[in-house]
Amino acid sequence: MSAPRDTTTQHIAYGDLIALLQQVFQRHGTSLEVARVLAENCASAERDGAHSHGIFRMPGYVSTLASGWVDGRAVPVVEDVALGFVRVDAVNGFAQPALAAARPMLLEKVRSAGIAVLAIRNSHHFAALWPDVEPFAYEGLVALSMVNSMTCVVPHGAERPLFGTNPIAFAAPRAGSDPIVFDLATSAMAHGDVQIAARQGERLPDGIGVNRDGQPTCDPNAILDGGALLPFGGHKGSALSMMVELLAAALTGGNFSFEFDWSRHPGAKTPWTGQLIIVIDPAKSAGHDFAERSQTLVNQMRGAGLQRLPGERRHRRRAESLRDGIALAESDLRQLRALAAQST
Amino acid sequence: MSAPRDTTTQHIAYGDLIALLQQVFQRHGTSLEVARVLAENCASAERDGAHSHGIFRMPGYVSTLASGWVDGRAVPVVEDVALGFVRVDAVNGFAQPALAAARPMLLEKVRSAGIAVLAIRNSHHFAALWPDVEPFAYEGLVALSMVNSMTCVVPHGAERPLFGTNPIAFAAPRAGSDPIVFDLATSAMAHGDVQIAARQGERLPDGIGVNRDGQPTCDPNAILDGGALLPFGGHKGSALSMMVELLAAALTGGNFSFEFDWSRHPGAKTPWTGQLIIVIDPAKSAGHDFAERSQTLVNQMRGAGLQRLPGERRHRRRAESLRDGIALAESDLRQLRALAAQST
Repeated sequence: MSAPRDTTTQHIAYGDLIALLQQVFQRHGTSLEVARVLAENCASAERDGAHSHGIFRMPGYVSTLASGWVDGRAVPVVEDVALGFVRVDAVNGFAQPALAAARPMLLEKVRSAGIAVLAIRNSHHFAALWPDVEPFAYEGLVALSMVNSMTCVVPHGAERPLFGTNPIAFAAPRAGSDPIVFDLATSAMAHGDVQIAARQGERLPDGIGVNRDGQPTCDPNAILDGGALLPFGGHKGSALSMMVELLAAALTGGNFSFEFDWSRHPGAKTPWTGQLIIVIDPAKSAGHDFAERSQTLVNQMRGAGLQRLPGERRHRRRAESLRDGIALAESDLRQLRALAAQST
Repeated sequence: MSAPRDTTTQHIAYGDLIALLQQVFQRHGTSLEVARVLAENCASAERDGAHSHGIFRMPGYVSTLASGWVDGRAVPVVEDVALGFVRVDAVNGFAQPALAAARPMLLEKVRSAGIAVLAIRNSHHFAALWPDVEPFAYEGLVALSMVNSMTCVVPHGAERPLFGTNPIAFAAPRAGSDPIVFDLATSAMAHGDVQIAARQGERLPDGIGVNRDGQPTCDPNAILDGGALLPFGGHKGSALSMMVELLAAALTGGNFSFEFDWSRHPGAKTPWTGQLIIVIDPAKSAGHDFAERSQTLVNQMRGAGLQRLPGERRHRRRAESLRDGIALAESDLRQLRALAAQST
C-alpha cells in the first residue's frame, strides 16, 4: 500500500474510513475497544495527509497481529502511583488503548497537581505520535510525549545502529485557533517516510542514512536493507534520541529499542517498548492566559516571515478531508475491503 | 576576556575561584546570597572547561549590574501553586538564586507527586543550563529544563530573527558513575561560542548563521553585527526552539525572547525571560532501578562504537581541575582581581 499517487481515487468519509479500519482490526484479532482506538488513530493520520502513518500501516498491523507478536485483546492495567504519576502496563498490547484507559486518571491528576506524567510500558506503538498529544491541547493543556521504537539509528559518533527513530511530540493550545502541534522523529527521517521513498523509487537527500557497511547512502532500499538512519542535527539530535530512550523506556519500565527480539514472530512490525507523556495545566501559570500568549508567539512568527506553522498543513488537510472526504487510491481501498473481509 | 589561550597560565583552586568571583559580584552590587549562587555557577563552568559560560561571562555580568537592568539584590518570591507546581517570581533578579530558593519545595513535591514543575519568571539567565539540572541527577532524579533568551535566531522558513538560542538541558542518574547530562542550544551554535569565535578571529562552519541582509555567512562578526543564527537541524530544531518559547516564557509568565527592551540600559547583556524545570522521580517507575537501566544504555552506546558520552568531557575536565586547579590566563586572572577590587 502506498501514499495516494494513482490517478484513480475515490473519496471516503472520515467516519466510513474509521468503520472500515475497525472492521479490519477486529477481523484480524483485536478486541472491539482496541479496534475502535486504532481505527480512529489510523484514519485520523490519513485524514490529515500524514500518509506514512495512515492506511499505509494497515498491512503491518495485520501481519503483526497474525504473527502473535502483539496481543490485540490486551486489557491495559492502570496503576495509580502518586499524586502526579500514573503507570500503565499495556500487557503486550498497543500503546493507544493504554493511553485511552489511563487518560481520565491522568487528566484528574493534571488538573489537581498542575503537572502529571503517564508512563506506559510493555506497549506497541506503530502510529504517529501527534494524535496522542493533540487532544490535550484541545482541553487547554500542554502535552509532551516521547516513544522509543526499534534499533535503526546510529548514535552520533558511533559506528552501529542502536537507537530507534524515537519521536518527540508536543501540543499546546492557541486562542481562537487550532493548537500548536509538532511531531518529529529524532532520526533525520521517519522510518515510514523511508519506506514510502523506497516504494516510490525515490532518492533521499544527503545525511539521512548509511548502508549495511556504514557508508553514507541516498538509496532508501540500502537503508532498509541492513543499513541505518542517522540522527537529525548531528550530536544534538542524537542526545535527544538518547533522552527518549531514557524517558520512554528506562523511566517507564519498557524495553529499550535494542532489547526486544521478534525473530520468532515473522511478520511482526510493531516495536515493543514504552512511552512517556507529560501533561501540564497552564491554568496554574502566572501572568496572561497561556492560549493568548501562544497566539501572540504565532503572530510574531508570521511577522518574521514564517509561511507555515508546524502542524498547519495537517489542519488544512483535515478541513479538506472533512469537507470532501478522504481521497484514497482505488487499489488501496480494494485492499482494505479485502482485509476487512478476510480473517487470518 | 577570552577562553584560555595565553601561554602564561596560573592554576587556581576551584574554591578560590568561587571566592574571587563572589567578591566580584558583591563588589558590583549583588547580595551575598546572589553572589554565592552565581559565583559557584560561573566557577563550575570554568572548572568543567565550558569556557563560553565561565569567567568569559564576568564582564557581561558586571556591565549588566552597572546598567541597572538587573536587580542583583532581588529576593525571589516562591509560590506554592499546586501539588506538583511551584512558581517563582525572580522580581528582575537572576534565575539561579530563584531556583535555589524554590528548590526545597520543588524536591518535596517531586518526592511526593512523582513529578513536579518549577516555573521561574521575571528572571535573567546568563549562564550554562546544565548546572541547573545536574544536581537533581545526583539526587537520583531526572530533570529537564528550558530557558529562552533574546531574539537572535531566525525560525526555519522565516526571514527575520525571533527566537533566542533557547537551550534544553537534561540530566539523569547513572549507576556507579557521573550522571548523563546534556545542554544544547536549539540554535546551530551557542551565542557564547559565536562570541568566542569572533574574538579569536575564527571562521564558522556552514549553516550557523546569516548576516544583516539574511544571507548565509561564516563570519562570526557578521552574525553578531546585525546578523542572526539559524536553528540546529532545520525545521526540527526550529520547532523545539518554539517549544522553549512556549514552555519557558508563555507557561511561566515570563517574557518571550523578543519582548524585553533593554535599549535604555546600555551595557545590559542578560536576557530577561523565564525558565521551566520539570523534575521526575524514577523511584515511581515500574521495573528495574532507573540508574541501572541508564548504565545499561550507556554500555550499549559504547558497544555501538560511541567514543564519548554527552557531558563526559566536562566530567573529565572537572576531575582534572579539582586535582590540579583551574588553569586561567594570567591576564584573565589579573582582570578578575581588578574587578573584585573596583566597584562601579
